Amino acid sequence: MQKLAIGIDIGGQSSKCGVVTQDGTILCQSVVTSLIDNFDEYLALLADTVKDLTRKTAAQGIPVGIGIGAPNANRIDGTIRYAPNLRWARDAEGKPGVVYLAARLEEATGLHVRITNDANAAARGEHTYGVARGIDDFIMITLGTGVGSGIISHGRLVYGHDGFAGELGHVCVVQDGRQCNCGLKGCLETYASAMGVARTAREFLQKDSRESLLRRIDPESISSKDIYDAAAQGDELAKEIFVFTGRILGRALGDFVKFSSPQAIVLFGGLTKSREFFHDEMVRAMNDNLMQIWKDKIQILYSSLKESDAAILGASSMVW
Amino acid sequence: MQKLAIGIDIGGQSSKCGVVTQDGTILCQSVVTSLIDNFDEYLALLADTVKDLTRKTAAQGIPVGIGIGAPNANRIDGTIRYAPNLRWARDAEGKPGVVYLAARLEEATGLHVRITNDANAAARGEHTYGVARGIDDFIMITLGTGVGSGIISHGRLVYGHDGFAGELGHVCVVQDGRQCNCGLKGCLETYASAMGVARTAREFLQKDSRESLLRRIDPESISSKDIYDAAAQGDELAKEIFVFTGRILGRALGDFVKFSSPQAIVLFGGLTKSREFFHDEMVRAMNDNLMQIWKDKIQILYSSLKESDAAILGASSMVW
Repeated sequence: MQKLAIGIDIGGQSSKCGVVTQDGTILCQSVVTSLIDNFDEYLALLADTVKDLTRKTAAQGIPVGIGIGAPNANRIDGTIRYAPNLRWARDAEGKPGVVYLAARLEEATGLHVRITNDANAAARGEHTYGVARGIDDFIMITLGTGVGSGIISHGRLVYGHDGFAGELGHVCVVQDGRQCNCGLKGCLETYASAMGVARTAREFLQKDSRESLLRRIDPESISSKDIYDAAAQGDELAKEIFVFTGRILGRALGDFVKFSSPQAIVLFGGLTKSREFFHDEMVRAMNDNLMQIWKDKIQILYSSLKESDAAILGASSMVW
Repeated sequence: MQKLAIGIDIGGQSSKCGVVTQDGTILCQSVVTSLIDNFDEYLALLADTVKDLTRKTAAQGIPVGIGIGAPNANRIDGTIRYAPNLRWARDAEGKPGVVYLAARLEEATGLHVRITNDANAAARGEHTYGVARGIDDFIMITLGTGVGSGIISHGRLVYGHDGFAGELGHVCVVQDGRQCNCGLKGCLETYASAMGVARTAREFLQKDSRESLLRRIDPESISSKDIYDAAAQGDELAKEIFVFTGRILGRALGDFVKFSSPQAIVLFGGLTKSREFFHDEMVRAMNDNLMQIWKDKIQILYSSLKESDAAILGASSMVW
C-alpha cells in the first residue's frame, strides 16, 4: 500500500484539500468554505473533509500526515497568529487572534499535522513539482488579494528565528504611503496586490480626467479583473495602472535580490494573469535598481502549477 | 603539533593578517598596506606576510589554510569583483575589475585559500566567537566607510545563488536619494555609513543656519569622528545628524526583519562608536516599521570583538 499525504490550502474564502502521492499527483480534492465564524465548527468541517477524502482514496493508499499552507501560519508552534482575513481565527472580541490549528487538527484526525504560511507552501510546491525544480535559491512572490512571499535559500525555506520570515508584502515601498491592513504604511501589498491595483485605479480615476472604460464601473467595486479587461481592450488609463504597479513591484524585487541573491524570482497568484501589462516595466524597474553584478541576470519565472495545486502540493510535501 | 589558520581582513587602506588557533586565539598579527596599484605586487606582499607569520608561529603549530574577508569577495569562484575601493583590483583602464585572489594566493603560498566578503567574515566571527554565539538567525550590519551585511539563517551564512547575497548597504532607503558609488541612488550606505553621516552634516550645515561646532571645520573634510566629538560636546546640530541617521537606519532594519525574521541584528564598525547618539531613534524607527508579531522583540546587539579581530577570526573560521 503506498503512502499518501493530505495537502490543505487555506484561504480567506475557501479551503482546498487534496490527497497527494509521493510523486506529486493529486488523486482527489475537495473544497470547503472558510467563511465560518467559529473555530470549533471550522475544525469539525476540516476534519470531516479529511476523513471523507481518506475514505475515497482508501484503495490507493494510506494517508501518513497532513500539511497545511495558511495565511500567518507558524511552522514552529503550529499556530495561526493574527490573520486579518480568517474569520474563524478571531478572538472573543472579534479581533484576529491565535489558534492552535496543528494541534487541534491532529487531535481531531489522528494524523500528524505540519503547517506553514501559504506563500511558503507555494514556494515548496514550485520547488518540488513546479517551475523552480532544480533552482535552490529563489524568492516566491504571491500576488493575490495580498502579497505573500516564500524564500528558498540553499534549497531550504527560510523560516527565521520564529517561523515568520518572508513577509515581503509588508516591506515599505513608498515612504508614508498607503495605509495597510497590517498597521504600517506604504507596504508593497498596498500597491502590488489585486487590492492594491484597485486602489491605484481609484486614485488614477480621481486625479486624471481622461476618458476610460473604468469610469463605467462604481469606483468602490472596481476589481483587478475589470482593470485587466479594460487594458485588454486598449484602455490607456488601465494600461498605465499596470505600468505603475510594475514599476513599484520591480523596484521592490531589486531590493529583495540584494538580500538573498536568488537565481530567480517566481511570481504566482491571480495578478500574474495581467502580466502582459506589467512584466516589461517590472523587469526594467528591477534592473534599474540592481548593481552591475546582477543586472539582466535574475530570471523572472511565472508559476507553472495551477494556483490551488501549487499550495496543495507544497503543503503536502511537508509530510514526507 | 596543533593546526593553525591564517585569517586576513582586507580593507581599502590596509590588510590585517593573523594566525589563529582553532579555539579563536590570535597568536600573532601583522598589518600591511592595501594602497598598492598593481595586483602582482600586492599579492607578493600578502604572500610574504603569510610566510613571515608562519615562521613566527612555527613553534606553536602548522597553518592548514587561509581565510580571507574582503569587499566584493565571492566565495564561490574565489574572485573579487568590481570593488570600488581596492586600488590593486582595477583593470587596465583603472576601473574596478575582476581579480582571482583565492587562486593566485593559493599558488603563491601553497595553502588552501577561501574568501568571502568582509561583512560575511565578520558575521562568522561574531557567530563563532562573539556576541552572536548561540544565535542561529541574525543579520550583521557593518557600519564603516560603507555599509556591509552578512545574514546568518538557520546557523548558516546566506550566500545566494552566486555568492553575492547580503548587499543590504545598497537597498534603496530614499527614493531618488543620494548618488551611491555603486551607481544606484538612495542606498542605505549613502546615509548610514561614516561617509553618509559626513554627507548629512554637509547638507544640514547648508540648509540650517544655526551655530554649530561643525562650522569650524572645512565642510569637505568633516568626518564622522568630528560629528561625534561635536555631539559629545552637546552640539545640537551634530546630535540631529545622528538622530536623522538613526531614523533611516532603523526603518531599513525593520524591512530587513521582514525578510529573514532574525532573533537579533548585530551592529559592527566604526560608526557604532557614536551609538549613544543614534541608538534610541534607530530602535524606535525600526519598531515603527514592524508588524505586531515583531514589535519590541528584535534584539539589537553591538559587536563585542575588536573590529579587526572579528573579521580575522571570521575569515580564519572558514579554514576549519
